[in-house]
Amino acid sequence: MIGLEASSFSSSLPPVRSQQFRQTNPSAVLVSPAAMSASVILPDLATQVVVPVAAAVGIAFAVLQWFLVSQVKVTGDGGSAGKGGASESLIEEEEGLNDHNVVVKCAEIQTAISEGATSFLYTEYKYAGGFMTVFAVLIFVFLGSIEGFSTKSQPCHYSVGKTCKPALANAAFSTIAFVLGAVTSLVSGFLGMKIATYANARTTLEARKGVGKAFIVAFRSGAVMGFLLAASGLFVLYIIINLFGIYYGDDWEGLFEAITGYGLGGSSMALFGRVGGGIYTKAADVGADLVGKVERNIPEDDPRNPAVIADNVGDNVGDIAGMGSDLFGSYAESSCAALVVASISSFGINHEFTPMMFPLLISSVGIIACLITTLFATDFFEVKAVDQIEPALKKQLIISTAVMTVGIALVSWLGLPYTFTIFNFGAQKTVHSWQLFLCVAVGLWAGLVIGFITEYYTSNAYSPVQDVADSCRTGAATNVIFGLALGYKSVIIPIFAIAFSIFLSFSLAAMYGVAVAALGMLSTIATGLAIDAYGPISDNAGGIAEMAGMSHRIRERTDALDAAGNTTAAIGKGFAIGSAALVSLALFGAFVSRAGITTVDVLTPNVFIGLLVGAMLPYWFSAMTMKSVGSAALKMVEEVRRQFNTIPGLMEGTAKPDYATCVKISTDASIKEMIPPGALVMLTPLIVGTFFGVETLSGVLAGALVSGVQIAISASNTGGAWDNAKKYIEAGVSDHAKSLGPKGSDCHKAAVIGDTIGDPLKDTSGPSLNILIKLMAVESLVFAPFFATYGGILFKYI
Amino acid sequence: MIGLEASSFSSSLPPVRSQQFRQTNPSAVLVSPAAMSASVILPDLATQVVVPVAAAVGIAFAVLQWFLVSQVKVTGDGGSAGKGGASESLIEEEEGLNDHNVVVKCAEIQTAISEGATSFLYTEYKYAGGFMTVFAVLIFVFLGSIEGFSTKSQPCHYSVGKTCKPALANAAFSTIAFVLGAVTSLVSGFLGMKIATYANARTTLEARKGVGKAFIVAFRSGAVMGFLLAASGLFVLYIIINLFGIYYGDDWEGLFEAITGYGLGGSSMALFGRVGGGIYTKAADVGADLVGKVERNIPEDDPRNPAVIADNVGDNVGDIAGMGSDLFGSYAESSCAALVVASISSFGINHEFTPMMFPLLISSVGIIACLITTLFATDFFEVKAVDQIEPALKKQLIISTAVMTVGIALVSWLGLPYTFTIFNFGAQKTVHSWQLFLCVAVGLWAGLVIGFITEYYTSNAYSPVQDVADSCRTGAATNVIFGLALGYKSVIIPIFAIAFSIFLSFSLAAMYGVAVAALGMLSTIATGLAIDAYGPISDNAGGIAEMAGMSHRIRERTDALDAAGNTTAAIGKGFAIGSAALVSLALFGAFVSRAGITTVDVLTPNVFIGLLVGAMLPYWFSAMTMKSVGSAALKMVEEVRRQFNTIPGLMEGTAKPDYATCVKISTDASIKEMIPPGALVMLTPLIVGTFFGVETLSGVLAGALVSGVQIAISASNTGGAWDNAKKYIEAGVSDHAKSLGPKGSDCHKAAVIGDTIGDPLKDTSGPSLNILIKLMAVESLVFAPFFATYGGILFKYI
Repeated sequence: MIGLEASSFSSSLPPVRSQQFRQTNPSAVLVSPAAMSASVILPDLATQVVVPVAAAVGIAFAVLQWFLVSQVKVTGDGGSAGKGGASESLIEEEEGLNDHNVVVKCAEIQTAISEGATSFLYTEYKYAGGFMTVFAVLIFVFLGSIEGFSTKSQPCHYSVGKTCKPALANAAFSTIAFVLGAVTSLVSGFLGMKIATYANARTTLEARKGVGKAFIVAFRSGAVMGFLLAASGLFVLYIIINLFGIYYGDDWEGLFEAITGYGLGGSSMALFGRVGGGIYTKAADVGADLVGKVERNIPEDDPRNPAVIADNVGDNVGDIAGMGSDLFGSYAESSCAALVVASISSFGINHEFTPMMFPLLISSVGIIACLITTLFATDFFEVKAVDQIEPALKKQLIISTAVMTVGIALVSWLGLPYTFTIFNFGAQKTVHSWQLFLCVAVGLWAGLVIGFITEYYTSNAYSPVQDVADSCRTGAATNVIFGLALGYKSVIIPIFAIAFSIFLSFSLAAMYGVAVAALGMLSTIATGLAIDAYGPISDNAGGIAEMAGMSHRIRERTDALDAAGNTTAAIGKGFAIGSAALVSLALFGAFVSRAGITTVDVLTPNVFIGLLVGAMLPYWFSAMTMKSVGSAALKMVEEVRRQFNTIPGLMEGTAKPDYATCVKISTDASIKEMIPPGALVMLTPLIVGTFFGVETLSGVLAGALVSGVQIAISASNTGGAWDNAKKYIEAGVSDHAKSLGPKGSDCHKAAVIGDTIGDPLKDTSGPSLNILIKLMAVESLVFAPFFATYGGILFKYI
Repeated sequence: MIGLEASSFSSSLPPVRSQQFRQTNPSAVLVSPAAMSASVILPDLATQVVVPVAAAVGIAFAVLQWFLVSQVKVTGDGGSAGKGGASESLIEEEEGLNDHNVVVKCAEIQTAISEGATSFLYTEYKYAGGFMTVFAVLIFVFLGSIEGFSTKSQPCHYSVGKTCKPALANAAFSTIAFVLGAVTSLVSGFLGMKIATYANARTTLEARKGVGKAFIVAFRSGAVMGFLLAASGLFVLYIIINLFGIYYGDDWEGLFEAITGYGLGGSSMALFGRVGGGIYTKAADVGADLVGKVERNIPEDDPRNPAVIADNVGDNVGDIAGMGSDLFGSYAESSCAALVVASISSFGINHEFTPMMFPLLISSVGIIACLITTLFATDFFEVKAVDQIEPALKKQLIISTAVMTVGIALVSWLGLPYTFTIFNFGAQKTVHSWQLFLCVAVGLWAGLVIGFITEYYTSNAYSPVQDVADSCRTGAATNVIFGLALGYKSVIIPIFAIAFSIFLSFSLAAMYGVAVAALGMLSTIATGLAIDAYGPISDNAGGIAEMAGMSHRIRERTDALDAAGNTTAAIGKGFAIGSAALVSLALFGAFVSRAGITTVDVLTPNVFIGLLVGAMLPYWFSAMTMKSVGSAALKMVEEVRRQFNTIPGLMEGTAKPDYATCVKISTDASIKEMIPPGALVMLTPLIVGTFFGVETLSGVLAGALVSGVQIAISASNTGGAWDNAKKYIEAGVSDHAKSLGPKGSDCHKAAVIGDTIGDPLKDTSGPSLNILIKLMAVESLVFAPFFATYGGILFKYI
């Protein structure tokens, strides 16, 4: 294959090579942006229009979806939403539509969940905000100190002969970008939670009309979140670049260095969201299940269970708000990584605006592609039966990938010069636009592969989960052994897919290739988030149905939605992890470039011990988060037991449990317990960089990346498989499943134990690990100039 | 600290630097071996005497211990062993000494176990032998092909101006060394098994006289194995070096290249031993426990359980034979790694025999140090009560480390020139003898640290295991969550200890430093193996006591021995893993040197994807082995259930179960299932090296190393902790423990589930992972010349 210079890239060209490229474009002899952009089909002005317009379209589409969801009334006049006349095509009969009481109950429960979630997020954001403020000061002080807080401009590193803004300015703007990233992440999570709590009772009410109606409400609500988040992330980034640009002017190096703060802010906030929310949701879930389902034999989400509100709040603050922040973080980081690498490449140095904005153009096209894809689920095609849910969601993945492939080709053709050079660890590498297309596309398609493999290992339609369910015959122990083995095995193909993408994109366009591959994987983020958010919304809808005392049939419908949601949640996590691996590598590459390192040699002790210790960090982090969930769950169990034992009439349903105490236990535990793992992740790069220097830090980043990605994938798939093995037994669709069930059988009890163990794996430690690897990388990147100047004091002075 | 040139070693010296060293030793101007050795205190002749004598002393000591054990008669005349008159000092009263019936029963059971183990090992070795034969042919063909099977001598790589033996000779001798290593490993495992099965009934019978007597028998038997293995490993290596030397003469490069085959043979055999034995033992154990303890509520090792013989056989073929082969492999590999690096260093090139034999001298002194240490457990000090067992075993670790530190100082002073140079990836590095002393010592002490940390996390005397036991209050799920978190957490300090040793030894003496650090950690292998083998022997003794229907008090004594044994087994695994990490790194370094690579740069796509895929391999491997145990256990459960259901009078004890069918199930499953993971490990380096080349292979080795060591530590500690949490509840010594028990309570049932899950983790997948990382490294080393010549065909031709 042409372009694959596998064994070495050092054969690349010196910076002057861009001369040659200019000679082939006679119109581009001048280095002014306007002149250079002649080599690109899309004019700069068009780019300036396309990006914000795409963002605006995304936001408008989200608002439209929200409007459609809001047509389902929870005020009790019987529900008039949806497309008229569709109901006769539904296979299931409608039921309970005129029960006014149910609607009132649903509204009450929704309010309780929404209030609980809002109150928790306020508390979480307060504490995280404190941490972030301190960190913002650190960023300013550390980065400002590089040139001794001088306000004088300095010669540029890469644009030879030009002057760049002082480090102090970069410090200030990095800090501002950091704060903006954190705020955007916070708002993303918060809005996601608001949408989800707005949607879940509506999904329950629509489930009275049939599974298809309920599906559309849940999916549309997910789409609100997906599009809002993708579009606002893009929009804020676009605004920042333009606003910062006013100050920076010609100094693109400094501009995009400062922009990386945006990624750091987004990811830091996501860390607290994921960890805090993850501990909250699983403490409540495990606590509720262990007493309710196992000891008291009452169904899941039974209103008699004191922890039931906390459990449902948890879904919204953990799975929704946490995940929203997380994926926003990934998006922000991959954009920043691509931009910072591009800023020191030929079109960065030559100030070609359109190719420089290539990452944002991909995201813009992604929004449009996802918009088209969404219509396939909501308008072009209709879910009419339970067994159409999973295919409908899977089609979303395939359609979005296919449409986006065309979109990428278009952007690469219109937005890039045919030939350009990329900075590659001290050398320059010539790249063609079609090669960059391949980089983006390989990331996109690797995401699809990861998605399908994840589905294969976590959906109970296939043999792996069925084998796990079958192993419950011999009890919980074999269930756990099989589940762990399944998780380990599920790592193999995703790792090969990631490795292949890395190899191809790295070979074709060095770290810029890897960064755009990550962007490719995340380009369908709106669809990914929509089907991801759909899961917890359906889960909550089922909870509300149970709590409102709705009929068994309705609960069956929401359960069917939820089972598909478990698989899509696992797929979403697969995407998040895969993209995190690519993003981290790109950030790592950018860090290495900025720190002035040209090789990271495993054959030096500093790098090797970094690698070893880095590979250990995910274990340390997982130990912390899992222990936190365990301890918090123990407290929850004691409280729930206490209430069952001391509140007379609770089991009989004549007395109400004290929901608030359980909410408080989850809140207190998660706030207290999110700090140590958060500190571990945030402080490690600072400590290693400052005391051991950039080489050791490089090792730590690489080690954490290659080790963390495996644990993250295996943890989230193991958890998903256990959850669906339990659901497989509960649903009892096939003869095999029936032979294992019904609910309450020994097999089912063993499956519940597996499910409970999987909870912290799949919803707390697993998904937080993406953030660990991304955050350490982006933090190192932001602090790279500081480490390069002052780092490694331990080795310097011993 | 002087000598710590952390950031780079490339400042090292060209090969001519050894000139300067010669100038400071005027007597050594000539480069002949005799002249050079003048700079070393110990004459070559003395070295030629010391090494075999130490080996002989070790073997003699083993025979003496065996003789003392054999004094316990299992023929039924009441037991007359031990030091006369010691019995009055025992706290526990003697009981059942005159029950002739019991002795006969013990003898019967012992015979059954011994026959089962022998028959399995024969089968295992037959299949492994087939695989090894094929592999031996591969080695010969691959290595022979390098110079087109030419029989002409070639110019040496490192000894400029000299001629070395042809590649074909190296191929032939490597193959011979491989076969010898495999055979030694096989014999080590087999003899270990024989000794253990000889000892276990004797331990049971001695337990009638008190815990102290039983302890001494179990410990002495462990010592037989430890000394026999350490001494014979050293002896065979010494013989091979001398015999091969006759052909190779002056060509030390070729000689020690060929010797590496010894390490590969040892480790390959160990792989099959560990994996096959591990699957065997855990399939039987899990199967026996799940039906016997959980479903039928009969005690562990109850003779009514059809899988009980298979379970006890398993301890001997897995924990004893497998571990023996494994540690022999580690020893052989670390010696080979040190020798091959040394052969291209100043004393290798200058043919200084004594410093060249430094690795063997360390092992020789280690045997003597361990001999002294053993006397502290058996003669200088006596175990009189249950609570003295663990301290006695711990003292063994401390004493052996302390004595050995003096031994290392002595050897470094006598056996090394004050200054010499070490080959360091294309450069030469000057090293002083005291620096090499530090390298060995840091490995030795890091081993002790790892041992103690392992003890802290797996012994039920400390809070981690007690917390896990406490979490059983809320059921099996929290037990598993806490146990997994404990395992993850237990990784932190060992990794820092390993990282520190690597950093120090790597900084002081490059890869030679790392290799001797590994040797330092393994220098007390005789003691390590003794306390390690003590565990399964005690476990089996307990099994025999139960099966022979001996009194509850005797079972309590063997349980106490066994609980200490669980901890020492975990410590032994900690040592094995720690040393495996160091050994693999040293082998990796040697591979890189031989493959002619000077940097392994993470910033190249080949290396990075190697790193990522390498980090995945331990997961793949674990998935295979765990699934194998799970499937085999399922079959075992079905068979045991079938027997309970179909054999009338089995539960009542009036009919005998069909032990043989269970033995057959374990045998068939393990033989069948050991092939795929074995093939994965053995073929990966060949495939990667041949198709992707040495850079990618370097990445794979580094990735597998840094990832595998974490999973191995966490898996083995998690398993150990669960086992001891269960024992903690069963023993009910403290108030806390009593509140969780007794046997059969809900807490205890939850603990049993954890213990069962831990079985494959701690005895199959965890300990096999050491072999994975070591074996891939040593195999790469052996095939390095082939890969360097023909490797990477995929990149060459695309």
